[in-house]
Amino acid sequence: MASPFLGELLGTMTLIVLGDGVVAGALLARSKGEGMGWIAITAGWAFAVVAGVFVATAAGSPDAHINPAVTLAAAVSTGNFAKLPVYVPAQMLGAFLGACIVWLHYRPHWAQTPDAGLKLACFCTGPAIRNAPANWTSEIIATFVLILTIAALVTHTADAAGSFPRGLAPYLVGMLVWGIGLSLGGTTGYAINPARDLGPRIAHAVLPIAGKGTSDWGYAVIPVGGPVVGAVLAGLFVRWLGI
Amino acid sequence: MASPFLGELLGTMTLIVLGDGVVAGALLARSKGEGMGWIAITAGWAFAVVAGVFVATAAGSPDAHINPAVTLAAAVSTGNFAKLPVYVPAQMLGAFLGACIVWLHYRPHWAQTPDAGLKLACFCTGPAIRNAPANWTSEIIATFVLILTIAALVTHTADAAGSFPRGLAPYLVGMLVWGIGLSLGGTTGYAINPARDLGPRIAHAVLPIAGKGTSDWGYAVIPVGGPVVGAVLAGLFVRWLGI
Amino acid sequence: MASPFLGELLGTMTLIVLGDGVVAGALLARSKGEGMGWIAITAGWAFAVVAGVFVATAAGSPDAHINPAVTLAAAVSTGNFAKLPVYVPAQMLGAFLGACIVWLHYRPHWAQTPDAGLKLACFCTGPAIRNAPANWTSEIIATFVLILTIAALVTHTADAAGSFPRGLAPYLVGMLVWGIGLSLGGTTGYAINPARDLGPRIAHAVLPIAGKGTSDWGYAVIPVGGPVVGAVLAGLFVRWLGI
Amino acid sequence: MASPFLGELLGTMTLIVLGDGVVAGALLARSKGEGMGWIAITAGWAFAVVAGVFVATAAGSPDAHINPAVTLAAAVSTGNFAKLPVYVPAQMLGAFLGACIVWLHYRPHWAQTPDAGLKLACFCTGPAIRNAPANWTSEIIATFVLILTIAALVTHTADAAGSFPRGLAPYLVGMLVWGIGLSLGGTTGYAINPARDLGPRIAHAVLPIAGKGTSDWGYAVIPVGGPVVGAVLAGLFVRWLGI
Repeated sequence: MASPFLGELLGTMTLIVLGDGVVAGALLARSKGEGMGWIAITAGWAFAVVAGVFVATAAGSPDAHINPAVTLAAAVSTGNFAKLPVYVPAQMLGAFLGACIVWLHYRPHWAQTPDAGLKLACFCTGPAIRNAPANWTSEIIATFVLILTIAALVTHTADAAGSFPRGLAPYLVGMLVWGIGLSLGGTTGYAINPARDLGPRIAHAVLPIAGKGTSDWGYAVIPVGGPVVGAVLAGLFVRWLGI
Repeated sequence: MASPFLGELLGTMTLIVLGDGVVAGALLARSKGEGMGWIAITAGWAFAVVAGVFVATAAGSPDAHINPAVTLAAAVSTGNFAKLPVYVPAQMLGAFLGACIVWLHYRPHWAQTPDAGLKLACFCTGPAIRNAPANWTSEIIATFVLILTIAALVTHTADAAGSFPRGLAPYLVGMLVWGIGLSLGGTTGYAINPARDLGPRIAHAVLPIAGKGTSDWGYAVIPVGGPVVGAVLAGLFVRWLGI
Repeated sequence: MASPFLGELLGTMTLIVLGDGVVAGALLARSKGEGMGWIAITAGWAFAVVAGVFVATAAGSPDAHINPAVTLAAAVSTGNFAKLPVYVPAQMLGAFLGACIVWLHYRPHWAQTPDAGLKLACFCTGPAIRNAPANWTSEIIATFVLILTIAALVTHTADAAGSFPRGLAPYLVGMLVWGIGLSLGGTTGYAINPARDLGPRIAHAVLPIAGKGTSDWGYAVIPVGGPVVGAVLAGLFVRWLGI
Repeated sequence: MASPFLGELLGTMTLIVLGDGVVAGALLARSKGEGMGWIAITAGWAFAVVAGVFVATAAGSPDAHINPAVTLAAAVSTGNFAKLPVYVPAQMLGAFLGACIVWLHYRPHWAQTPDAGLKLACFCTGPAIRNAPANWTSEIIATFVLILTIAALVTHTADAAGSFPRGLAPYLVGMLVWGIGLSLGGTTGYAINPARDLGPRIAHAVLPIAGKGTSDWGYAVIPVGGPVVGAVLAGLFVRWLGI
């Protein structure tokens, strides 16, 4: 049954199950991981990327993007936009379903957690300091670094002299995402992936989460738009560089 | 003397020596690692998987499952159940022996630790919030993710285009287990392996542990049954996917 | 547009964006990573090296040094100093630009952070205990270990019997730098790279950082001179060893 | 100038510079890493192993044991004891010199640290609970696990079907040592290497460390003798297994 659509869907679902899962594990009351901190949250997202890319590949995506920003940057860089209408809906649906699974997985913990803001953080990102220009800038910079480093990695796998086994790329991408989270995530929580933020935010809005608050739609444009802008800029830059 | 039985036994023993060992190191009084937290516990279990899979392979298991849920999922996925009666007893015995070695290793620390619950946690899992349906769900979800990601990895090693050296699979599986622990372990302590929970629980029941309390047999069905259900579902899903 | 100059520039810029970024994430007020500690800071620098080396290679540097001390040690070891006048200015410029991006990325956090010393630490290194001979010694030792271990790694990639895929070298170098940071960084913050310290210090001096203090030019000679001395000694040692 | 003697010497020196270095970084007053905890200490020792094995190989050791227990286990397993008189003195001398470099590196921090026990811990191991039979048992178990997992790894590199590039073995051994430290290090600080304990203990005894206390020679037999016993048992076991 493997197909590019299913691959992107299952891969992104895996990404969000493990990614939103680690935030829930760190923030929800009475979780065994409660309070494990930013290094653990960023590590969890890194392994979520590794797992998501492996699942996406195995389930039929030849690209395993699991991120509309990566799909868009590849389109800008190559001039071929044909994959966007297939991949992006799959990524959005996968992200939504992944967030539903996290809600189910941590079912009794929602009612035990008094702070509605922490519950929202288990779904989507929010700014450390609410400042629209700065938050846009942060998401653009972090997404640009993501795309540039992935492009550099992919070049490596294609280059005989410097190559490593292609199957290790998911692990290396995950480690780079760990680095981006540690280094650039402190400002906005590094969405760097429109599906990662929007899919779970919709899930937050529609799921019957015990004691939930606002889904903060006023902020939602930045973790979607910032990665889009960053991806376009990075796609153009990668094209200019010729890598 | 290498054989599949010995491989699964020694591999699972190594898994539990290092896995239960890191819990003991984090929870027992006066351990140098006391209080090292969830990121360290999940890291320790990850390296335990890496070591266990290497030992299982070297000692004669062609599969190095070290987990009845993985053996079961492979059987469901392939339709061949012949390995279960060989592997599962070896895994159970290995897990029991591994827990005995952890007890021996931390010998003077048991009497120094007043909380009997912490001592039980060095052997087997327990729920963060005791809620049978939710705990079943958590174990099913986490085991499903484990099986799906391992299947995706194995597909990679078999696929010329996307392959990496097969000998790196143990490391990558370990890293995925680190991710599962960080992201999905907060609810029930991620048994995701019936032998990992039942073998050490029996050890807890029979060993003369200083100041031990109940072995909590009322909970024991979930960390065995949840992974079994999750493995069957994931095996069927992997078969449907065709990976 | 790829070229050795651009490769060293972009690689070093990536190094500093992620490296100074993780310090900012750990030290600046209201960052989501505030207080994440030395293990996270050293991890961030490690991934910064991995990303920087990949970007430098992809953008055209055949060596991906992203560190004048490494360029100098290679020159001393081989007797060929021709790359220094190309690489070092690129590394310095890249480091300066990287620090500017970190300032931009964490824009609203500078005014929120009262301690000017913490703000300087997001740019360049400073001693734990100010003691010139000891600080020189620390930088010389840490740089020596860096060069020796990198030379040992590079030998591995060139050696058929012990080789690993060359494309994994950036990851392994990053892990070694994680180790150097954990083990030898406690004294001076392990500059071990003149560009990593001087470029961002200049950025600190010229950028309009809210509430900034001194750029501590009195210390600046040590994180430049120490790595230079360490690189010369290690280059001679590597040459004597014949690796 | 590369030779087996020099390889073992420089590799073990690198091991101790980074290994004792991370303990100093975590324990000495005013270190930037002060208080970074057991996960950081065990990570630092893991990277110390990675670096030490790479340096030992590059500097001429065909085995890169950097640990007399590994050399002894290999001798017991193969029946060839010829390498012991070359490797063990090199390992001891390297460990002694490595500890001297750590003392030099953290020079101004010794006088700032009031607790003499913490200073000793930067050189050699000590028990969490002083209990000779239990401490012997811990060192024997941890060394046994070390030897068994290394043997399993080496088998992998020699096995065409399951092999990975031999040059990745140092990294994987380091990760296994991280796991052993997390899981089994809590009791005695996991010497698991007679040179790692005895060489630095001699350095502690002879160096003019500000405010140092006893070198605790009463305990010194255990971190030497335990690994020796564990290595012999594991060497025999590996031989019996036929791996």
